[in-house]
Amino acid sequence: MEREFVDWLRDRLPRSPRLKLGIGDDAAVLAWAAELDLVVSSDLIADGVHFVSAEATPQQIGRKALAVNLSDLAAMAATPIAAVVSLLAPRNGACGLESIALCQKLYEGLLPLADEFDLTIVGGDTNVWSGALVIDIAIFGEAHPRGPLTRSGAQVGDALLVTGSLGGSILGKHLDFSPRVQEAISLRDAYQLHAGMDITDGLSIDLARLTRASGVGALIDLNAVPIAEAASTRAATSTQSPFEHAMSDGEDFELLLAAPPVEAQRMVRDQPSGLTVTKIGECIAGSRVLGRTASGSIQPLATSGYLHH
Amino acid sequence: MEREFVDWLRDRLPRSPRLKLGIGDDAAVLAWAAELDLVVSSDLIADGVHFVSAEATPQQIGRKALAVNLSDLAAMAATPIAAVVSLLAPRNGACGLESIALCQKLYEGLLPLADEFDLTIVGGDTNVWSGALVIDIAIFGEAHPRGPLTRSGAQVGDALLVTGSLGGSILGKHLDFSPRVQEAISLRDAYQLHAGMDITDGLSIDLARLTRASGVGALIDLNAVPIAEAASTRAATSTQSPFEHAMSDGEDFELLLAAPPVEAQRMVRDQPSGLTVTKIGECIAGSRVLGRTASGSIQPLATSGYLHH
Repeated sequence: MEREFVDWLRDRLPRSPRLKLGIGDDAAVLAWAAELDLVVSSDLIADGVHFVSAEATPQQIGRKALAVNLSDLAAMAATPIAAVVSLLAPRNGACGLESIALCQKLYEGLLPLADEFDLTIVGGDTNVWSGALVIDIAIFGEAHPRGPLTRSGAQVGDALLVTGSLGGSILGKHLDFSPRVQEAISLRDAYQLHAGMDITDGLSIDLARLTRASGVGALIDLNAVPIAEAASTRAATSTQSPFEHAMSDGEDFELLLAAPPVEAQRMVRDQPSGLTVTKIGECIAGSRVLGRTASGSIQPLATSGYLHH
Repeated sequence: MEREFVDWLRDRLPRSPRLKLGIGDDAAVLAWAAELDLVVSSDLIADGVHFVSAEATPQQIGRKALAVNLSDLAAMAATPIAAVVSLLAPRNGACGLESIALCQKLYEGLLPLADEFDLTIVGGDTNVWSGALVIDIAIFGEAHPRGPLTRSGAQVGDALLVTGSLGGSILGKHLDFSPRVQEAISLRDAYQLHAGMDITDGLSIDLARLTRASGVGALIDLNAVPIAEAASTRAATSTQSPFEHAMSDGEDFELLLAAPPVEAQRMVRDQPSGLTVTKIGECIAGSRVLGRTASGSIQPLATSGYLHH
C-alpha cells in the first residue's frame, strides 16, 4: 500500500524552505547551516502499551505519537525542526478503519501539531503487517543558544520547580497534552536553569532520575506539589489519594526544572510562560530524595510511578 | 525493562567526538557545524514482513535493520553520521531468547556494522509488548559535497548502470549484504552521476521509479543485466529463470545509477569501487521502459518485483 499512501501524504505535507528534498526519494535532504548543535530523540508508541486503539481516535493516536517526541525536545529546551515517521499498521486496519484510511487519520492528527510547532515531516516508512498498530517517530531539533537543558546540571541548593499541575493524565491529558516546547525555550531564554526534563513516568520516578543524573539529593515540600483536578477525580474511584496520583501517575508531560534560588524566585514571581511554575523543593547534598510534610516531619519519598513494562 | 537494558547498552556504545550528549538524557546532542546538508531517512523492519525471527539469528536481524538504513544513505551518496534505534520486543522474547537477551543480541549484530561505517548510535527507545519483534531506525548523514544523489536527475542519453549482480538475495544476501555506502561516495567523488538509488524491490520496479522521477524512459539490454549466482540457484527450484529473478527479486541493495555516456564508459573501464559496475542500458525519451533481447528485438519490460504488502 505504500505508494498510494505516499502519494496521498505528499500532497498534504507543508513545504519548508529548509527542506531541499522531501518524501519520494531514498532519503530527505534538509539544510542545516546553523552553528547550533543537533538534538535528536525518538519515541515509539504501540497499541496496548502506550495507547489502546479501541479507546482513542486515530487522530488522537497520531497526535500523541508526535507530542511525546516534541516533549523530549521541550525537555532539552530545543527548537523542533524536523521528524521522520514510521507507521506499522494492521493489515486489517484498526479503530474501525481499513489500513490506508487508518494511516491517513493518524496523519490528520499529527500534521496540525507539526504545523503548530513549525516542524517539517521529512519522510518515513509505512508498512502493513499482521500485528497491532505501531508508530515510531524520530525528531530533530536545534539546541538552545545557551546549550541543551540536561538532567545532570542540578546543584546542591538549587530550587526544584514544575510547570502546570500533576496527576490523573490517564483521564484525558495523555491524549491531548501540549508539549512544553515554547515554555521551555522561554524559560531557558530568560532564566538561568541548571537542569530540566519532562515528567513522563510520574514525578517521583523522574525526580529520582534528575537527582541521580546530577549527583544530588532532594527535599520536596509535599504540600507544595501542584495537584491536577484530574488527580482528584481519579482518587475518587481509586485506592490512592490525589497527592499520590500527582506523585506517581505517568504522562504528565510537564517540565521538572532545577534553578538557583534567586532565579527560581524570579520565575515564581514573574510566572512568565503562560503556565504556572511552582517551586516544590530543593536539591540537597547526598543522594536521598526526601519529603517534608505540612507538619515539618521529613521522610524518604517513595519512588513509584508508571512504567510501560 | 528499559533501565537495565539502557545501562547495558551505554557501556557498549563507542564514543564519538561529535556526540556531546549520548544515551541517558531526554535526547542526544550532536555537534553539527558542517556546511553540508543533513540527509535523513528511516526504515522499519518487522517480524514476518522483512525477516522471519524463526529463520534468522537476532544478530542477523539487528544487522539488517541498520544495513537497510545505511543503504538508503548509500542511495544518496551521503556519509553516515548517526542513528537512533527503536526496539519493540515481544514480552516473552523471540529467537529462543528472553526479551532483554534478545535486545542485546540485536545490538551485537548492529553495533559492528555501525562501527564499520563510523556511525554513532545516539539514542533510541526500547519497549516490550505482546506483539512480534519490530525494529525501526532513523539514520542521518551528511550530504556529499557535490550534493545528494537523487532519483530525479537522469537525462535522455544517460547510461544506466548497476553495481554487483542481482537476484536470489533471499538465499542469504538479504541478511548479510554490504550497504554500498563507500562505493556510492567514491563514484560520486570521481564521476559525474546524474541520478542514483539503491535497488530494494527488484530492478524492474526500481528502474521504473528512477525513470518516472526523472521524466525519462529506458531501454535495457536484457543480456547485459548481471545475474547473481544465487539467482541461478533459486531458478533451479522455482518457476522463474535466473534472468527473471535478477529483474524482480527484492533486496539486492545494489546501486542503480544514471550517468552521461562518457562517464559511464570511464566507470566501466576503471571499475573503481572494488565492485563490478555494469552498463545495462540507457535513458530514452518518453516514459516507457523497454528491453532489448540478444537478437535485437525490443519489447516493453514487465514491472514486477517484491513489495512488502
